[in-house]
Amino acid sequence: MGELLEKAKLLKAASYQMAMLTEKEKNLALEQIADALLSNIDFILEENSQDMEAGAAAGFAPPLLDRLQLTEERIRQMADGVRQLIELTDPVGETTEKWTLENGLNIQTVRVPLGVIGMVYEARPNVTVDAAALCLKAGNAVLLRGSSSAARSNLALAKVMKAALQTSPLPEDALQLLEDTSRETATEMFRLNDYLDVLIPRGGAGLIQTVIKQATVPVLETGVGNCHIYIDDSAEKDMAIAIAENAKLQRPSVCNAAETLLIHKDWPHRRALLQSLFDKGVELRGSADLTAECSFMKQAADEDWHTEYLAPILAVKTVENIEDAILHIQTYGTKHSEAIVSENSEQVNMFFRAIDAAVLYHNASTRFTDGEQFGYGAEIGISTQKLHARGPMGLRALTTVKSLVEGTGQIRH
Amino acid sequence: MGELLEKAKLLKAASYQMAMLTEKEKNLALEQIADALLSNIDFILEENSQDMEAGAAAGFAPPLLDRLQLTEERIRQMADGVRQLIELTDPVGETTEKWTLENGLNIQTVRVPLGVIGMVYEARPNVTVDAAALCLKAGNAVLLRGSSSAARSNLALAKVMKAALQTSPLPEDALQLLEDTSRETATEMFRLNDYLDVLIPRGGAGLIQTVIKQATVPVLETGVGNCHIYIDDSAEKDMAIAIAENAKLQRPSVCNAAETLLIHKDWPHRRALLQSLFDKGVELRGSADLTAECSFMKQAADEDWHTEYLAPILAVKTVENIEDAILHIQTYGTKHSEAIVSENSEQVNMFFRAIDAAVLYHNASTRFTDGEQFGYGAEIGISTQKLHARGPMGLRALTTVKSLVEGTGQIRH
Repeated sequence: MGELLEKAKLLKAASYQMAMLTEKEKNLALEQIADALLSNIDFILEENSQDMEAGAAAGFAPPLLDRLQLTEERIRQMADGVRQLIELTDPVGETTEKWTLENGLNIQTVRVPLGVIGMVYEARPNVTVDAAALCLKAGNAVLLRGSSSAARSNLALAKVMKAALQTSPLPEDALQLLEDTSRETATEMFRLNDYLDVLIPRGGAGLIQTVIKQATVPVLETGVGNCHIYIDDSAEKDMAIAIAENAKLQRPSVCNAAETLLIHKDWPHRRALLQSLFDKGVELRGSADLTAECSFMKQAADEDWHTEYLAPILAVKTVENIEDAILHIQTYGTKHSEAIVSENSEQVNMFFRAIDAAVLYHNASTRFTDGEQFGYGAEIGISTQKLHARGPMGLRALTTVKSLVEGTGQIRH
Repeated sequence: MGELLEKAKLLKAASYQMAMLTEKEKNLALEQIADALLSNIDFILEENSQDMEAGAAAGFAPPLLDRLQLTEERIRQMADGVRQLIELTDPVGETTEKWTLENGLNIQTVRVPLGVIGMVYEARPNVTVDAAALCLKAGNAVLLRGSSSAARSNLALAKVMKAALQTSPLPEDALQLLEDTSRETATEMFRLNDYLDVLIPRGGAGLIQTVIKQATVPVLETGVGNCHIYIDDSAEKDMAIAIAENAKLQRPSVCNAAETLLIHKDWPHRRALLQSLFDKGVELRGSADLTAECSFMKQAADEDWHTEYLAPILAVKTVENIEDAILHIQTYGTKHSEAIVSENSEQVNMFFRAIDAAVLYHNASTRFTDGEQFGYGAEIGISTQKLHARGPMGLRALTTVKSLVEGTGQIRH
């Protein structure tokens, strides 16, 4: 039996034990994990340095090396993140609904863990700890499949966490790192329906699409955000400028950053807004009417409307009216986060009703689409699909329900 | 452009209109559909008779021909079913949660339609109407892909419904039947992520597995039920017999019927129960200890514990204790419906906590796992997966949520 199947079987068996644990027991295990990370900093850094050396030798670009690198501070942050989970309420066991049928059957639906979660992620080794701790807190067993470039770092972190579980009420088997990082084994993992209840890919669009295309295990799709800001003709000047700049520039590399600005043709402050964005270093790519008006703008091509730049670049278009803006977003949006800046509540209502996206904003930056910002305490990702969970996913998205039916001998007629 | 892509584009466009409709508008459309079915009985029966002739010529077995056949009564039942949906509360627009962040942002999550639903089903033409009406009531556009053996019946029903939509507030494009029933086009449909939000297969295990294996569009898995009844040593005799007989015999061909009986070794009424089941015509397949005791029982093979008979056959096993029963269900169950008959609340609690299934019963028949029985009014299927919806799926399972965030200029720091 190969590594994958062996670990999958251990996880499945462990998942039944996990489902029976109390919140206190799970918190104790998180405490042990946080402590173990801190007392093993040297070991983790040593293993990480080997990944770093191999990465440098393989000619990794500096941003990739940065994502790969662990430091004492980064390990302390991971441990802090684990400790923060202890404060969060465990959703498992919560009764979500309760009703009685005419025949006297009492039904209640209660939250239970999903079971076994497969995490598939890229270079950043902190996901090994962040994701594992979240899954465990919600009572799940977790199979971690990181990238080969971080293999030694991930293995070190998994070893430290598993050793910590040995002195906790949790089964050590509930956490497994897949050491075989080959593509063939990954594909096999994505089709392991008998053992895995869900796959959560975290990383770039390429990784996510690969998982979706190859998987038969249900996937929680996360990630890609081609987010729009629509500035209505009634928008307040300063607010519109502040929101556009924040949504584009506060952290351009993330999925909830804005990528396209749609401006109502009659809004009087277009020039001031664009000048301000340009002065702050944003490369602006606009439709022909705009480039004629603003010499500092570049011409946009059709693909600009499709592009998630993840950089200080912004596509800009003037629209005739809100219907035009809505149509543009329906055509090019990725159903992540979309904002309207407006003082006209009718227009806001229309925007909120017509746009199909995880999160819609009125007079606020799209950058708030985030589990911590939403008050969930932590997030496993931002769902851009419609089943199960939409938008930021916290602990609750890592659970499902079961129905418990209490009878007194009822049979069906 | 082929039929599939053309219809998918129409559906996508229609789905935006559908999301804006009121409950009253959707009910009006259902009214029109119900009326149209009744006023087109002759046309529908005529088209159905051609499918029946072709089926008979192709040598279809009688049960398949029965599933294919429409009668005036069956069409009236379909129309009644559509009318019953009018009474059900539309879940769309419901606020499911509401909270305010420290920075003053007001967040609410509201129910919205899923979008475009792909229904994939087998011979029974009534699914064409039942599924379409449910999807429309929840504000979705729907692509119907039935089997080629019912092609003329399905097309007749779709034509009648589409004509009815022409005199309703709903876009006629929101309902499309895929006339091309080839496997190649089905596979293409299962991978149409840009246009379809979810696939719901309804039919046998073969169909469901084909969809799961081929699809990249998220699938709501329905169906297979290898359901168990565990009779604890404290179980009341008459109740245990009534529940076992009801779960096996009230309708053996459905997924919530029982397939295996697990009996605690110390329960004193084993012989009476088995004799009674045998007298009622159940073929009993048991472990060696049982066949030695009851001459009317056959020997069970390992595959019996895996089998969803869908027939008056029952596998029977004595177990040492509840842990043994739980382990058996964990090993062979399909996470559908599992029951315990017991007068010992500690044992019931253990069963409810340990078993991972959509619906768990104490002292009641597994036959209640059904949308109408659960009080949902109608069901699109019974989910045996863990994401999104579990157990009977009513209108709410055909919706998702979006988060609406109201701000006053908030930006992220």
